[in-house]
Amino acid sequence: MLQTISWTGQAARLLDQTKLPTETVYVDITDEKQMWDAIRRLVIRGAPAIGVAAAFGAYLGIRRVEGDRAELLRSLNEVCAYLATSRPTAVNLFWALDRMKHVAAEGEPATASAIKQRLLDEAIAMLEEDNRICRAIGGHGAKLLADVCGDKNQINVLTHCNAGGLATVQYGTALAPVYMGAERGMKFHVYADETRPLLQGSRITAYELKENGIPVTVICDGMAATVMSQGKVRAVIVGTDRVAANGDVANKIGTLGVAILAKHYGIPFFVASPTSTIDLSLATGDKIPIEERAGAEISNGFGKRTAPQGVDIYNPAFDVTPNELVTAIITENGIAKPPYGESLRAMCKLDTNGVA
Amino acid sequence: MLQTISWTGQAARLLDQTKLPTETVYVDITDEKQMWDAIRRLVIRGAPAIGVAAAFGAYLGIRRVEGDRAELLRSLNEVCAYLATSRPTAVNLFWALDRMKHVAAEGEPATASAIKQRLLDEAIAMLEEDNRICRAIGGHGAKLLADVCGDKNQINVLTHCNAGGLATVQYGTALAPVYMGAERGMKFHVYADETRPLLQGSRITAYELKENGIPVTVICDGMAATVMSQGKVRAVIVGTDRVAANGDVANKIGTLGVAILAKHYGIPFFVASPTSTIDLSLATGDKIPIEERAGAEISNGFGKRTAPQGVDIYNPAFDVTPNELVTAIITENGIAKPPYGESLRAMCKLDTNGVA
Repeated sequence: MLQTISWTGQAARLLDQTKLPTETVYVDITDEKQMWDAIRRLVIRGAPAIGVAAAFGAYLGIRRVEGDRAELLRSLNEVCAYLATSRPTAVNLFWALDRMKHVAAEGEPATASAIKQRLLDEAIAMLEEDNRICRAIGGHGAKLLADVCGDKNQINVLTHCNAGGLATVQYGTALAPVYMGAERGMKFHVYADETRPLLQGSRITAYELKENGIPVTVICDGMAATVMSQGKVRAVIVGTDRVAANGDVANKIGTLGVAILAKHYGIPFFVASPTSTIDLSLATGDKIPIEERAGAEISNGFGKRTAPQGVDIYNPAFDVTPNELVTAIITENGIAKPPYGESLRAMCKLDTNGVA
Repeated sequence: MLQTISWTGQAARLLDQTKLPTETVYVDITDEKQMWDAIRRLVIRGAPAIGVAAAFGAYLGIRRVEGDRAELLRSLNEVCAYLATSRPTAVNLFWALDRMKHVAAEGEPATASAIKQRLLDEAIAMLEEDNRICRAIGGHGAKLLADVCGDKNQINVLTHCNAGGLATVQYGTALAPVYMGAERGMKFHVYADETRPLLQGSRITAYELKENGIPVTVICDGMAATVMSQGKVRAVIVGTDRVAANGDVANKIGTLGVAILAKHYGIPFFVASPTSTIDLSLATGDKIPIEERAGAEISNGFGKRTAPQGVDIYNPAFDVTPNELVTAIITENGIAKPPYGESLRAMCKLDTNGVA
């Protein structure tokens, strides 16, 4: 299976996503400057993957520092402040860097050398934790899909955007049930919406599924209704950027339309979400701020002008799917079903082994 | 207003659609070879516009022929056979050429010179007929939109693909109500789906609305649900490639999804259709053959590869919207409403003045 990020023993190895979908190239990152550049240029992307990359970046930035404990901690602070400027809006980036600073400074005072080891161990732990969470989502989701489809040899799902392995360390969220199910002998066919304007579906989802040996068919976003009407899709599964306490789901623009089509055709609509993405402080989805992006992504998205100069363009990057269109939310701690007010709260109280 | 095709007295003047949306260039076509090339290269496109262009091409091909009536008719047959090879699937092309041959050969035997005049008159008549039909659709549709929206100063509609002036001589079908309404002082704002894969919405619809002074906002196809959920759209209006006797509507891929979204949000979904596009010989829409086109339109549509090499792609060019999602069908003879089995038959029996 493709790995978005791995530790070679000497370097953080990243799959260079700027080369997709045409080339599969890995780059070995050996210092914090290279990692800053890799995050900035979207060599690595996806909130969970960025968090892990930043943690390795912090370790790489201090591993050659000579000096005592105080000097090492000072260097770590500088390296983390620097890495934090790579992509100022990615929350997981700050969260990961804080965690690295915490592990270095807290607990038993240690020698500089012991702190370096602790930091490497923590980065590796974060990588493994991401895998564990994704695999847990995958396990719950695979069982759910098998139940819904009734035939483990013909599980046809549709997904939108990329919430796959390439947004995490390896397994993804929305695609984890597909990968984990395939490990268990289930047979999938994925319909991937290309996902305008930035085409994460055709560029990234189709690429990773193909490389990982899962049959995939790319369609334009406007073809989702057709494949549903033809009975080609048994379930929809997508990722999410934020889930409100009532189960409203923010995700890549176009998700809301897919959810409405799924309801029209009686197809279950599933959302895969780590509990860290569930924001119990937000009562409803209309509180989620929606980023509006440059019109040029639509009018000039392919290096060629495809709309008249100066025409008005509306480019919201996300939409919010109301909870009544969401059949279930798959977390690492199990499946939340309506009413979400209760079930999401319960999921967030469990530890990652599903124990309250 | 932009004119797709006009007669200068000496030449057929075409708006060169291969230059859109970046340049507005007209070309004067003076012989049949130039017209063949213009149709082939999509300088002119849209079934009604192609028909009128072919009629002028036939006249241009024989206007300099020396000789008697028999020689002229022989030349006309050759020219028509040649023009028929320009785009072998456009039904209006053959229909227009047959009509030109018929008008030359039938009726009172005439001199070569009189036949030439008849052919020019017929081409001009076909152009005017297209305008008359589109304007009649526009008149009925503008009234319908004013009734539905209740406020003639704020009529927000969404359209998909291009069924505008640039697919006909001047007014279009789906956009005719907008242009005719604007002539009557109504204020419109059109949301134009970009319409993947070939982007007729952003390239052509947005261009012609902007040039004709109608406010337009381009969105990606996956944003239609969002603008509907925000209350920005009061009605959907689209064109059609074929309407079955029961009111099922074939149109550009993506239309079905828009119709389902409109139903979900309680927004009326209108189809503009000349009666010539209503096929009473087809009982239902599932009898309409759906062209499947090359995957490269999706994976390489803009001169840049956006999906991995060798990945499976599904590219149906049209979809069929079932009649229960269609609020009304606007023809040149009036508005057909459910049940369509009766109302469409009635529309097709009327002449273009609405008289049975």
